[in-house]
Amino acid sequence: MGEQKRIGILTSGGDCAGLNAVIRAVVCRAVGTYDWKVLGIRQATQGLMSDPPQFIPLDLDKVDNLLTAGGTVLGTTNKGDPFAFPMSDGTVRDRSEDIIAGYHQLGLDAIIGIGGDGSLAILRKLAQQGNLNLVAIPKTIDNDLGSTEHSIGFDTAVNIATEALDRLHFTAASHSRVMILEVMGRDAGHIAISAGIAGGADVILIPEIPYQIANVCQKIYDRQSQGKNYSLIVVSEAVRTEEGEPVMSTNRLGQCRLGGIGQYLSDKICACSNAETRVTVLGHIQRGGTPSPLDRLTASAFGVAAVDLIAEGKYDRMVSWQNRQVVDVPIAEAIAQYRAVDLNGTLVKTARGLGICLGD
Amino acid sequence: MGEQKRIGILTSGGDCAGLNAVIRAVVCRAVGTYDWKVLGIRQATQGLMSDPPQFIPLDLDKVDNLLTAGGTVLGTTNKGDPFAFPMSDGTVRDRSEDIIAGYHQLGLDAIIGIGGDGSLAILRKLAQQGNLNLVAIPKTIDNDLGSTEHSIGFDTAVNIATEALDRLHFTAASHSRVMILEVMGRDAGHIAISAGIAGGADVILIPEIPYQIANVCQKIYDRQSQGKNYSLIVVSEAVRTEEGEPVMSTNRLGQCRLGGIGQYLSDKICACSNAETRVTVLGHIQRGGTPSPLDRLTASAFGVAAVDLIAEGKYDRMVSWQNRQVVDVPIAEAIAQYRAVDLNGTLVKTARGLGICLGD
Amino acid sequence: MGEQKRIGILTSGGDCAGLNAVIRAVVCRAVGTYDWKVLGIRQATQGLMSDPPQFIPLDLDKVDNLLTAGGTVLGTTNKGDPFAFPMSDGTVRDRSEDIIAGYHQLGLDAIIGIGGDGSLAILRKLAQQGNLNLVAIPKTIDNDLGSTEHSIGFDTAVNIATEALDRLHFTAASHSRVMILEVMGRDAGHIAISAGIAGGADVILIPEIPYQIANVCQKIYDRQSQGKNYSLIVVSEAVRTEEGEPVMSTNRLGQCRLGGIGQYLSDKICACSNAETRVTVLGHIQRGGTPSPLDRLTASAFGVAAVDLIAEGKYDRMVSWQNRQVVDVPIAEAIAQYRAVDLNGTLVKTARGLGICLGD
Amino acid sequence: MGEQKRIGILTSGGDCAGLNAVIRAVVCRAVGTYDWKVLGIRQATQGLMSDPPQFIPLDLDKVDNLLTAGGTVLGTTNKGDPFAFPMSDGTVRDRSEDIIAGYHQLGLDAIIGIGGDGSLAILRKLAQQGNLNLVAIPKTIDNDLGSTEHSIGFDTAVNIATEALDRLHFTAASHSRVMILEVMGRDAGHIAISAGIAGGADVILIPEIPYQIANVCQKIYDRQSQGKNYSLIVVSEAVRTEEGEPVMSTNRLGQCRLGGIGQYLSDKICACSNAETRVTVLGHIQRGGTPSPLDRLTASAFGVAAVDLIAEGKYDRMVSWQNRQVVDVPIAEAIAQYRAVDLNGTLVKTARGLGICLGD
Repeated sequence: MGEQKRIGILTSGGDCAGLNAVIRAVVCRAVGTYDWKVLGIRQATQGLMSDPPQFIPLDLDKVDNLLTAGGTVLGTTNKGDPFAFPMSDGTVRDRSEDIIAGYHQLGLDAIIGIGGDGSLAILRKLAQQGNLNLVAIPKTIDNDLGSTEHSIGFDTAVNIATEALDRLHFTAASHSRVMILEVMGRDAGHIAISAGIAGGADVILIPEIPYQIANVCQKIYDRQSQGKNYSLIVVSEAVRTEEGEPVMSTNRLGQCRLGGIGQYLSDKICACSNAETRVTVLGHIQRGGTPSPLDRLTASAFGVAAVDLIAEGKYDRMVSWQNRQVVDVPIAEAIAQYRAVDLNGTLVKTARGLGICLGD
Repeated sequence: MGEQKRIGILTSGGDCAGLNAVIRAVVCRAVGTYDWKVLGIRQATQGLMSDPPQFIPLDLDKVDNLLTAGGTVLGTTNKGDPFAFPMSDGTVRDRSEDIIAGYHQLGLDAIIGIGGDGSLAILRKLAQQGNLNLVAIPKTIDNDLGSTEHSIGFDTAVNIATEALDRLHFTAASHSRVMILEVMGRDAGHIAISAGIAGGADVILIPEIPYQIANVCQKIYDRQSQGKNYSLIVVSEAVRTEEGEPVMSTNRLGQCRLGGIGQYLSDKICACSNAETRVTVLGHIQRGGTPSPLDRLTASAFGVAAVDLIAEGKYDRMVSWQNRQVVDVPIAEAIAQYRAVDLNGTLVKTARGLGICLGD
Repeated sequence: MGEQKRIGILTSGGDCAGLNAVIRAVVCRAVGTYDWKVLGIRQATQGLMSDPPQFIPLDLDKVDNLLTAGGTVLGTTNKGDPFAFPMSDGTVRDRSEDIIAGYHQLGLDAIIGIGGDGSLAILRKLAQQGNLNLVAIPKTIDNDLGSTEHSIGFDTAVNIATEALDRLHFTAASHSRVMILEVMGRDAGHIAISAGIAGGADVILIPEIPYQIANVCQKIYDRQSQGKNYSLIVVSEAVRTEEGEPVMSTNRLGQCRLGGIGQYLSDKICACSNAETRVTVLGHIQRGGTPSPLDRLTASAFGVAAVDLIAEGKYDRMVSWQNRQVVDVPIAEAIAQYRAVDLNGTLVKTARGLGICLGD
Repeated sequence: MGEQKRIGILTSGGDCAGLNAVIRAVVCRAVGTYDWKVLGIRQATQGLMSDPPQFIPLDLDKVDNLLTAGGTVLGTTNKGDPFAFPMSDGTVRDRSEDIIAGYHQLGLDAIIGIGGDGSLAILRKLAQQGNLNLVAIPKTIDNDLGSTEHSIGFDTAVNIATEALDRLHFTAASHSRVMILEVMGRDAGHIAISAGIAGGADVILIPEIPYQIANVCQKIYDRQSQGKNYSLIVVSEAVRTEEGEPVMSTNRLGQCRLGGIGQYLSDKICACSNAETRVTVLGHIQRGGTPSPLDRLTASAFGVAAVDLIAEGKYDRMVSWQNRQVVDVPIAEAIAQYRAVDLNGTLVKTARGLGICLGD
């Protein structure tokens, strides 16, 4: 089994379903198989930044119930870029060396970082600056990370958005309404197009495809002329106005004064049609809750594989799901390939093939 | 079996889960047992108001898949009080005689009206004016109708709100946030307090109990001082500002410019605490979707019992759930007894007993 | 708040969803409000029988995640009647005094016993013999306990059985099959009739109603003649053969050599019809899993109310759900009133009204 | 759009979740985009065998609610190989020419066959013999078909089995029991290993890996010595006895007299350990019910792509899911590559990495 290692694990960026399942898998493999020590770093890089570093020693008992638990027991924050960290006194400081110092202070042989593209880019920069042994695990409900077919949290988020559409379908039909569902996804439309197809949406608007309100209204009319007096619209949070102006997101900031893109669409559709509209902003329920079986499976496979990479001394790699197998790729490659919805890919073709209006 | 009757059925007011299950039960009993004719009136009283009246003939085949279907195949509207009906030319007219005429034009022996307190009051007024044989079935996600332990749609709505809390719990804990969930319920707090208890909320605000923001913030502090850096707040849509001013509802109008009570609370809590907050407005997904088994059971029992009342010639009655049995009560009694959350009842006692902050 | 008490809590008999939610509510109330000590007795009365007694000290932290957790963290057993306890040496002994001694050894002021009719009868006998201060909370998926509209665990079990019927419906229709679902319920048909109505069964067989296979086959034929080449049958585990002979239960014993009543029916139906049949024995998944919101709410209300009874010094009482309120009744009354399915009650009427075959 | 075609679609073999979603997608594309005629062939090849052929004309209205409906509205049967078809008079006949005649009698330009490996092999043989234009869509809950990452129905089946494990986990822990869950999967262990990992099983037995009871008991002991008095075992229906003898399956035949492999294991474990065991045979609920969002998405993508293959005149091809895209492969290739669980693949590695006992 080689020498006993001491590894850290942290969860960074927005939470999602499946993070705890990763933590469990890492501990099962590292402690159960290799008899290593695992330190759960609290609050992402902030746990390392603190003096003394904040962590939870993780053993098999501590992770016993984590497979089905949503979120992350380690906590996570979006408090800011450690290279330009907003201090409580209002100044901005480079805290990278503090983090690197924390890693060494804990005597870590390696660290597993679970994050999306932003977090992984920062972790990699820290690793290179401080010669830290980093292995990465992709997670993001947005599924916008390249080099892997899916990231942890995406399947669960799609399931939740689809279930919401299933519910809205009935109330839309009963009241002859146009129902607009605003979903998360940051700059990519993966949740919107996946849930939209799976949930039987009539219109799907994603940031990757510019749209015209007139096309949306035409679709509503076409359905009305077929005796279907209701329509379901899914819109991704980052979709802009028809003219390309950004709309303040309801979800992310929690500061919706003007309404998000869902409300914008509602107003526009009211103006150009005789339809009664209602908006639902799905919000943070997309992030939370028990992970789907697929997210649990992926999380378990990623966790085991990440520990094995450390056992083999392969660092600066990200585990990735490709063609039913976990493989590993350079972190640099994964974060270099931002993945938008492929305009020539299967999902867009399928949506068009089903007669779903994509706004263009 | 007596002579063959010809009965109508209509669904009135906001839709909810279980309406189709009632329609199915009515047809199973009226057609299957008594061999009557059942006419499904379209779009509530508007179907009777039209000339000719709009209806769907209902037989056993047509209702075969309705047990699990959300919403209502008959459609429903909230287009206005038929005694003061907003016409397309901008005028307001009393359309009550048109509705009564529609009932007679269809040759109905009786009509089953499914609705909440508002709808049932209107239906009863029409029945009295026109000598219509009316039997009522209570439905409302708000559960504010008196004389029955629960109305159709309430259990499903509570389930959905509880599931949302289950999800928010994990993301709140992961990010050390205060999560605010705004739920429906019109002027009553039944959904909020039921889902709040079932979903483990830390604070529940309902219209029946005036609150102070300071008490809410104190609860958040208390939890922080116990090491719990997150809190879940459920708020009913009709809760007012601390000073008792109404806040425009996000859900009902679909015209949220200023944000609803959820957003108001978020702003206030941000101001009086160091907590990061997020708001989720659950909206119309509470109305829709497959009904819960309890709603299906209640709907089935109500539908059968309503037909039996007609068979017995007992009109002006509402079926009601009391102590594990369906009984019937005068409609007048049910609509006279608006039911708010009982401040001395089990739910409020339970919430306080669990240490949940009710704001007072 | 009066003097600080020291109370025990135990879960007895078969497990079900909602037990942990009761434990949480008891601790929230007893510790959070009254500042008492709560001892969780392990493995039902066996924890008291042991020397020293086996228990877990329960505080607010320990119950933090118990609202949604299935089963019971205290454990439970069906190892036998303490008044005639099967010893490991093969003898049978009266262990009642050991249990009473355990209660006193722990210095308990009162004990909350969560159980069904069998367990509560034993607990009451112990309480009377040893002058123990007992408060009871009803739980049983079978819902056969009198004096309360429902017991903890029943709603969840009905939900699971209904969901199974929803699934079987589709596969039955696709393959033109008769699907038989055997559900739990011990000697009562509450789960079967509730889930059967909610899940759209065509035939429901319960122990309370003797049946004839010919009637079941007739129903299958009638449906076939209406073009419905499939049927769903729900049968309660304790249903006997047509001649009234008991069939060894598949569920309870785990020793099914001959097949349970589901298999018996399948053979009989094959013999008297041309239908292809399949049997599903739902088994222990009915007991487990996250409790339904209604079970969580009931569990929470019962837990708080039980502690309040102790605070008031009201012993030998069982908390009970009646007409939307928790009340308390003598334990003696509850266990004296075994509740079978009421043959003149709403559920039987509803089933017949929907055209469901009850076998008679 | 080219000339108007007339195509058939049939569902063959065991039903599963997602078949109706495929039918809907085919009609949306073929009728909605290309304005073709679509004939839904009833009861798989039996619909073509009949004289006249049995079919349902499918238009957009008919498929409106099929996205979320389980099973197949076309029906399916396993009545036998058409090349050696069991006749009602007890003889066996080659009915292949009848089927081919039915295809021509209906004037079909092409046919879409949805099936697993067995069905697709038969359909291909028919197509080659009769010069039929065949496009295939892979479906099987067993996921044993080569050349595609997943087939329709698999994800839903894994979800249901995982949910069952989630439930059994709680009741196992409460009663200190060993719970055995027997799942489907025919000769492959895909459902068992996927659900086993996702549902936190302690032991997973699949047909691909010979096992020893002693290893299973050792795992139970090891857990007991760590204070975990319960264990979860998942076993695939085709697992044999320790000595390699087949055990009559409970699921498939519906004729379980001796009990299936679940019961066999239960007896063996009882004999070699002090554990109390219970068996649940999940059965047909794995096939039925609303498809998961992933199955709906895959079904939609496959349906659209299959129609496009016909539009391009590409026959004898199967649509396939590979690396987030739908591609097409020769049917011959897909059915030649039976896929067992890969002993060196990610799932087996993950299971071992988590410390799950695979019996060897």
